[in-house]
Amino acid sequence: MGSFARHELDGLLVADDTNIRYLTQFPASESWLFVSRRRAFYVTDFRYVLEARKGLRGITVLRYAKSRGETLFEAVRSAGIRRIGFDPNHLTVAQYTALRKRCPSAARLIPAPGLVENLREVKDKGEIAHIRRALVLHKEAYALVRRTIRPHLSEQQIFWRLEEFVRARGVKFSFSPIIASGPNSCYPHAKVTQRKLRKNDLVLVDIGIDVNGYKSDLTRIFFLGKIPSFVRQVHECVAVAQRRAIEKIRPGVAVAELDGTARNYLAKNGLAKYFGHALGHGVGLDIHESPRLAKANPAVLKEGMVITIEPAVYIPNRFGIRIEDMVLVTPQGCEVLSDDIHQ
Amino acid sequence: MGSFARHELDGLLVADDTNIRYLTQFPASESWLFVSRRRAFYVTDFRYVLEARKGLRGITVLRYAKSRGETLFEAVRSAGIRRIGFDPNHLTVAQYTALRKRCPSAARLIPAPGLVENLREVKDKGEIAHIRRALVLHKEAYALVRRTIRPHLSEQQIFWRLEEFVRARGVKFSFSPIIASGPNSCYPHAKVTQRKLRKNDLVLVDIGIDVNGYKSDLTRIFFLGKIPSFVRQVHECVAVAQRRAIEKIRPGVAVAELDGTARNYLAKNGLAKYFGHALGHGVGLDIHESPRLAKANPAVLKEGMVITIEPAVYIPNRFGIRIEDMVLVTPQGCEVLSDDIHQ
Repeated sequence: MGSFARHELDGLLVADDTNIRYLTQFPASESWLFVSRRRAFYVTDFRYVLEARKGLRGITVLRYAKSRGETLFEAVRSAGIRRIGFDPNHLTVAQYTALRKRCPSAARLIPAPGLVENLREVKDKGEIAHIRRALVLHKEAYALVRRTIRPHLSEQQIFWRLEEFVRARGVKFSFSPIIASGPNSCYPHAKVTQRKLRKNDLVLVDIGIDVNGYKSDLTRIFFLGKIPSFVRQVHECVAVAQRRAIEKIRPGVAVAELDGTARNYLAKNGLAKYFGHALGHGVGLDIHESPRLAKANPAVLKEGMVITIEPAVYIPNRFGIRIEDMVLVTPQGCEVLSDDIHQ
Repeated sequence: MGSFARHELDGLLVADDTNIRYLTQFPASESWLFVSRRRAFYVTDFRYVLEARKGLRGITVLRYAKSRGETLFEAVRSAGIRRIGFDPNHLTVAQYTALRKRCPSAARLIPAPGLVENLREVKDKGEIAHIRRALVLHKEAYALVRRTIRPHLSEQQIFWRLEEFVRARGVKFSFSPIIASGPNSCYPHAKVTQRKLRKNDLVLVDIGIDVNGYKSDLTRIFFLGKIPSFVRQVHECVAVAQRRAIEKIRPGVAVAELDGTARNYLAKNGLAKYFGHALGHGVGLDIHESPRLAKANPAVLKEGMVITIEPAVYIPNRFGIRIEDMVLVTPQGCEVLSDDIHQ
């Protein structure tokens, strides 16, 4: 971690389960990892200590009884560590306050946000392979939706079919699926309801498949019959906005520029006011991870990032269109990983 | 909230989704509620604003674009509010730091931990009715396990049967089920594996059913054939430890006394060193909520609390026995809500 130097850290407290998993491959739960140049400690409690001792190699597993902080600082003190980084996004005010009280006088707690998240932005070959496997299953899942949907079926029943599918494949969903039919599609984070599909409905299906912790995340719109011309125009407009953003993707491009490209195209067509969220996000071990593709984010694209591009238009109480693909940033441009997955 | 007076608060920022749900009945997601004596604001973003405006009565829904804190403080400022309570357990250091930067100079942020959690400890009749409904289904779920388990079936297959059951009943699990067979039962938070049950195995089944957000949480041990005499002795010992703790339950008793009662009984039988977690916890909208039944907790029982009592013995790499019931604190003593649910 080169960022150790920038913050002049002797060690880093990693308090986020997914970050610990990323660094150790171990499925952490309610535990802390401490890494320094020479040593690594995993601080956990009675419930998890046996699995941790079996699963973690080269990392000292410490069991705490009363206080995680006390156990951590005992280890830190004996290793002569002074400048301890922590991520202010992953400690509550209460945890930080308790930790500071127990901090040895020779040591200091230094806010160092996003160090592990920055590493996680760029995926290696193994990580990309997991994501590709998730997308192969995702394609099958959408084929199942296409075969299944028909009038009178409820959103819930489509959900159950998908649930059977992921179970049979021994995988799981990346997040709680969104299956939003008709006017329900106008809610960006709609819940699955008992609503039955009707003739000429559209159905927004935003799902993800998790393979070994790595996730897919795509949205497609399925049409049941005739598409009203306004809906068709909006769909076409969102698709073009997405294409224009994707065409800009290559290392070095500002994420804000991607967001602006899609948003400006929607604005020209009078639809930008119906697009209230960011253009996309990194995806990997978390369904939403760094970088967030938002106007205010100064980040630039790096080779190996995997991001979603998901422009949308939500017309209140009428319908919503979101088209979401996953894109890998390559040395010269990009690869749309979900290019062969259609609605 | 009488505790407003103790902290001399003019208003309280509620940043925990479950606490917001408790106060408003609305299933909050990534949003903040602000309550003062006269006004209430719900601060959310584009994704959730439509549902919130429909679902929340008597509460002003504010949509933020850039910063939740900025939008909150605009509302707070115009309402002349000065002393703003927040729960340090529900804000990260980063959220708190950003909030403090934007705090109007006339206002102050005051740490006020656990105010809503304290209210939630005592359940009203409606809440207890939801929990009883969850337990009726829980009893059926255990009957299904009893009918289903046999040698050669895997933990995963038992899980699937239970999953079908909750789905058919239109409910969900309270938490990721623990179905731990043979030596897997020695891990307090075992994951469901592909391990196949064997003749004379024991199977620890710790599941919960969620009805309208309210949860059941019980553990039973199922035996497949002969019970080795040491296992039988341990099981009997854990059962007696549990009974002794339950006999003490009535309003005014210290939770530490309950924990001590069970632990001392196990200690007399040389088993306390294998019991590494707390005796139990409150249960309601969260699967683990206040009060935690631990030695170091100075809390006392109140009428209307619903708590688990779950002494356990985990013999490393051999087996684990946990017996967990749910108990309602009544005016004169207690009612074991899960009394008629057997393995």
